[in-house]
Amino acid sequence: MGGRVVRRIERADRSVIDGLAHAGVATVHEAQGRTGLLGRHLRPIFPGARIAGSAVTISAPPGDNWMVHVAIEQLTDGDILVLAPTSPCYDGYFGDLLATSAMARGCRGLVIDAGVRDVRDLSAMGFPVWSAAVFAQGTVKATLGSVNIDIVCAGAAVRAGDVIVADDDGVCVVPRETAAAVLNKARAREAAEEAKRGRLAAGELGLDIYDMRSKLEAMGLRYE
Amino acid sequence: MGGRVVRRIERADRSVIDGLAHAGVATVHEAQGRTGLLGRHLRPIFPGARIAGSAVTISAPPGDNWMVHVAIEQLTDGDILVLAPTSPCYDGYFGDLLATSAMARGCRGLVIDAGVRDVRDLSAMGFPVWSAAVFAQGTVKATLGSVNIDIVCAGAAVRAGDVIVADDDGVCVVPRETAAAVLNKARAREAAEEAKRGRLAAGELGLDIYDMRSKLEAMGLRYE
Amino acid sequence: MGGRVVRRIERADRSVIDGLAHAGVATVHEAQGRTGLLGRHLRPIFPGARIAGSAVTISAPPGDNWMVHVAIEQLTDGDILVLAPTSPCYDGYFGDLLATSAMARGCRGLVIDAGVRDVRDLSAMGFPVWSAAVFAQGTVKATLGSVNIDIVCAGAAVRAGDVIVADDDGVCVVPRETAAAVLNKARAREAAEEAKRGRLAAGELGLDIYDMRSKLEAMGLRYE
Amino acid sequence: MGGRVVRRIERADRSVIDGLAHAGVATVHEAQGRTGLLGRHLRPIFPGARIAGSAVTISAPPGDNWMVHVAIEQLTDGDILVLAPTSPCYDGYFGDLLATSAMARGCRGLVIDAGVRDVRDLSAMGFPVWSAAVFAQGTVKATLGSVNIDIVCAGAAVRAGDVIVADDDGVCVVPRETAAAVLNKARAREAAEEAKRGRLAAGELGLDIYDMRSKLEAMGLRYE
Amino acid sequence: MGGRVVRRIERADRSVIDGLAHAGVATVHEAQGRTGLLGRHLRPIFPGARIAGSAVTISAPPGDNWMVHVAIEQLTDGDILVLAPTSPCYDGYFGDLLATSAMARGCRGLVIDAGVRDVRDLSAMGFPVWSAAVFAQGTVKATLGSVNIDIVCAGAAVRAGDVIVADDDGVCVVPRETAAAVLNKARAREAAEEAKRGRLAAGELGLDIYDMRSKLEAMGLRYE
Amino acid sequence: MGGRVVRRIERADRSVIDGLAHAGVATVHEAQGRTGLLGRHLRPIFPGARIAGSAVTISAPPGDNWMVHVAIEQLTDGDILVLAPTSPCYDGYFGDLLATSAMARGCRGLVIDAGVRDVRDLSAMGFPVWSAAVFAQGTVKATLGSVNIDIVCAGAAVRAGDVIVADDDGVCVVPRETAAAVLNKARAREAAEEAKRGRLAAGELGLDIYDMRSKLEAMGLRYE
Repeated sequence: MGGRVVRRIERADRSVIDGLAHAGVATVHEAQGRTGLLGRHLRPIFPGARIAGSAVTISAPPGDNWMVHVAIEQLTDGDILVLAPTSPCYDGYFGDLLATSAMARGCRGLVIDAGVRDVRDLSAMGFPVWSAAVFAQGTVKATLGSVNIDIVCAGAAVRAGDVIVADDDGVCVVPRETAAAVLNKARAREAAEEAKRGRLAAGELGLDIYDMRSKLEAMGLRYE
Repeated sequence: MGGRVVRRIERADRSVIDGLAHAGVATVHEAQGRTGLLGRHLRPIFPGARIAGSAVTISAPPGDNWMVHVAIEQLTDGDILVLAPTSPCYDGYFGDLLATSAMARGCRGLVIDAGVRDVRDLSAMGFPVWSAAVFAQGTVKATLGSVNIDIVCAGAAVRAGDVIVADDDGVCVVPRETAAAVLNKARAREAAEEAKRGRLAAGELGLDIYDMRSKLEAMGLRYE
Repeated sequence: MGGRVVRRIERADRSVIDGLAHAGVATVHEAQGRTGLLGRHLRPIFPGARIAGSAVTISAPPGDNWMVHVAIEQLTDGDILVLAPTSPCYDGYFGDLLATSAMARGCRGLVIDAGVRDVRDLSAMGFPVWSAAVFAQGTVKATLGSVNIDIVCAGAAVRAGDVIVADDDGVCVVPRETAAAVLNKARAREAAEEAKRGRLAAGELGLDIYDMRSKLEAMGLRYE
Repeated sequence: MGGRVVRRIERADRSVIDGLAHAGVATVHEAQGRTGLLGRHLRPIFPGARIAGSAVTISAPPGDNWMVHVAIEQLTDGDILVLAPTSPCYDGYFGDLLATSAMARGCRGLVIDAGVRDVRDLSAMGFPVWSAAVFAQGTVKATLGSVNIDIVCAGAAVRAGDVIVADDDGVCVVPRETAAAVLNKARAREAAEEAKRGRLAAGELGLDIYDMRSKLEAMGLRYE
Repeated sequence: MGGRVVRRIERADRSVIDGLAHAGVATVHEAQGRTGLLGRHLRPIFPGARIAGSAVTISAPPGDNWMVHVAIEQLTDGDILVLAPTSPCYDGYFGDLLATSAMARGCRGLVIDAGVRDVRDLSAMGFPVWSAAVFAQGTVKATLGSVNIDIVCAGAAVRAGDVIVADDDGVCVVPRETAAAVLNKARAREAAEEAKRGRLAAGELGLDIYDMRSKLEAMGLRYE
Repeated sequence: MGGRVVRRIERADRSVIDGLAHAGVATVHEAQGRTGLLGRHLRPIFPGARIAGSAVTISAPPGDNWMVHVAIEQLTDGDILVLAPTSPCYDGYFGDLLATSAMARGCRGLVIDAGVRDVRDLSAMGFPVWSAAVFAQGTVKATLGSVNIDIVCAGAAVRAGDVIVADDDGVCVVPRETAAAVLNKARAREAAEEAKRGRLAAGELGLDIYDMRSKLEAMGLRYE
């Protein structure tokens, strides 16, 4: 029932992480074979943020944010806090004071399958959060959880040090070991898309660019 | 199980369509007797858009966006894509490349009872979408659906060529045949509301303007 | 089944109300012992508003907004309308005309466990609303409800004249009788937080500031 | 806004209707090309019922069951009541008294995208209901709706006289005109399934019966 | 933040309570003017139970069932436990051991706006529960709540000693002071319904029994 | 994007698996430190089943049940199929024919974070299913998934060969390697509970049996 803090975690290269941030969630998710998305109920508290970082994971009891304090000590520059409650909970585990502390340690944002509060202040501070809820309900500090253990957050398995990518489309996790390979595929994908974008903007049809007409006909599509 | 594309559809007059856009969803919905609203779970990806257009309908299998490419060829200037999955699905059927293609053909927006992605780019492009979800989950191109058949989208029956009106209040469908009549009623309603707005702003009460006091008393309302 | 309007209600001091608005929902909720929050499904129609006011309560039948007109007559400057339907309903009870009327009487906003419409206009007017839905669906005026009776709104008991505080974190109710005491505690809390904010921003850890390390160790936390 | 009652409706042949009941929802839905299902949120109030009948449709205002009384007069032996509220509502529109009246006129059951109550009595009476909710909340009789007009119920278009099939898997609508053809396909499907059932029970694999192995290999499936 | 146990509570007469149980939720709710229903998300763990009793209320922190033990000591024969979490939570607060203890003290059942577990055993024991969820997730005993204070449970205000009525239709609360009067109205209602039931079963229509035809015509109902 | 089938998986001892079935979900979940529960939205299609078995995992595209056929070939006696869609989907992936085939290979049940159909037949066959939905919506066989890879099902990480325990309280996963140890703890827990059950049934209070009174007093609990 909790009680473990793993101090040393491996992280991906900073340049890889930043490249994944640039690519964004939809592209990264495609580049790793349509895997790694967290649930669509995680929504950003303000639009426009696009970040990536190394996951510092938190497994927390319902309504108890004690472990967030423990996790903040484990942060290094460029990390993202990723919190999963041990049973479904929408309380506000995190607010402006914790964000102040996390930012002081270089934290880039928070992904939480629970609630967050003080969102007006967090927005003003430019601290991005993807959460399952905005809810002012407070928490206690009475029961242990764990930090940097393997968790399942919003339906996706996340290990400490995995790369988290988050933007307006949601949140995606990339295993640390394959992050560089995924970045390469993402860049190839971006280049291919860029070429198509110009053709599509000029009025060419996807039916022709992707050579779909014969396949559709073979499947039996009828025009009336 | 799908496989039909209807090429020729009737559309309402452009001036009627644009008039309905100006009136907005709440007024249009009232003007046609409180009918035609799509479900309230369809939300805009950015605030402030107010559009109307002719529906090009798409019936698509879950997790399969092949028919969107087929539908884009059927678009003419001023149309709106309206997609209903054949079973509930929240995958991201549509992103910035498809929007580029649709905009090149004069498409005014997308209404989709499923998911959309690349919303940061779509917002930057000014391409409005009303969707049931924002979700980066990709789709395949493996199974046929249909284009321009009758569909039920978010609980409302929509036929190809019907007028779709969408703004921050949601989405409403107006049958093509009655669009002009609905517009007339909407304008009358707007004029009546405008007159009342001034009186209400000056402090007059709806109780008096609408002559409600005697009816309320007859129903038994007691002031204590 | 409804039919009562209470004309005279007690209100808290204006300065107390305004102080609670400044403190905001998360702080006020903590200051009164983590009680009084309305359900997290109530969301603001635009970000950034932070208000407080005296509740004028409305108990309304599903799909019937007649009592809103009755309630508006009971408003005085600084009040907030609080509407609970007698059974769950998401129709648009309230739009720009009613807002015009309410603003003319000094109303500061609306909290409604149901739907609202004309949100583009309401946003432009700067009239803040916290609602369970945005939905253009119209209502009728056929059945009585009550005004200024005790209600349960979004899971919280609200009496006419209680103080409502609302911001981007949600909505909180403070009993009129204890509002001044809650404000004192909120201010003390704010002062204490301000002191901690500086230390946290400078890199000190909550683990040290709150002296948590020995307690965590006693509970059995293991660092690995 | 309502106010129409269509007296004369066409119905399918009784023998076709009864044949569809025997086939059940899953088979009928497949037999008509995977179309016609109502939303999965409609659930039976007791397990084991399997019925079919001709739809008598009701469009009812939220929280108002007046039109149910009007609809009951339109029932003939073998009909099923199908109610859609004009905006989402979960109140208990229907209870044991209405069921007594409907049964006296030969009604086989109720499909309602809203609430039902007195379910203990309804179960004891053997009157099957598929509903979106069980909720004791009462309704009023103050506003008109319509009977036997086209409706959308739980996401499916239903016309008066269409065949409704309902069992533990949910509810399906079959257009009156194609009901006989769908029944033929359903029977063919049942026969084909029966033959396969024996082979599967004997241990043969679907992979072999349906000759899937080569297709899976061609798609790239790898055994490890 | 909790920490209070009220020992002495007033209860309604046993004969009144038992009469309300006999009437059932739908009738009692109507008899007190369509008020008092708890949310429809509270569902029984097995069908067929119909009970009434005096509320022993519990306000419990999320994921913490310590106060249930405290509440059980406050039970007397004929009571019903009513638990509301201080923030939304679906953990399994209650199982077969607690039910054994509660039954030993004469408890008639549990109403809980949270989760319950061991439902197979509870069903075998015949201990009825209305809950928001069935979920095996365990709870801790670390934080105080309160017993026999005023609570809001599933959207309804409940005071200790109020009468709780529960059956397959849901749960209703009746204030202790008005319980006898409500029972009288419920009995009158049952008698009136009984008379109508026979007429409806014989084929008479509600349109005639309730004399609705002229009112419908006056409202504008058109038969086609 | 799928396409892998792992043929050889390790399984726990049959006697351990059967012991875990006997203990049931709530006890097993407690015995392994309150971990391993799948989401509470997985509900049994009929009450009373209590099973355990080795997981044969399926990762399936939305609306595509091809991989179920592949997985059935991998079943051995005592296994349980565990299916997670690659994006949220509620279609009916599984019905009576697949159940016939699975039962012929010794399968004990199905856990599926999606839909199931033919539930009347499945209940009659005694084939237990825990699913996120009952929905007749059919699926296609057009896209590859994978069998016996690591999956996340309803929020819990499941590996092929892990022990699945399921009953009316829900579903729990126990890692194969620790299954025997968890069984020992579960049995100890059952024995301890049995001893307490007798004392509680005799009227002793948990407050005394668990020696809670002094702790509650120390925390500040006040009796009034």
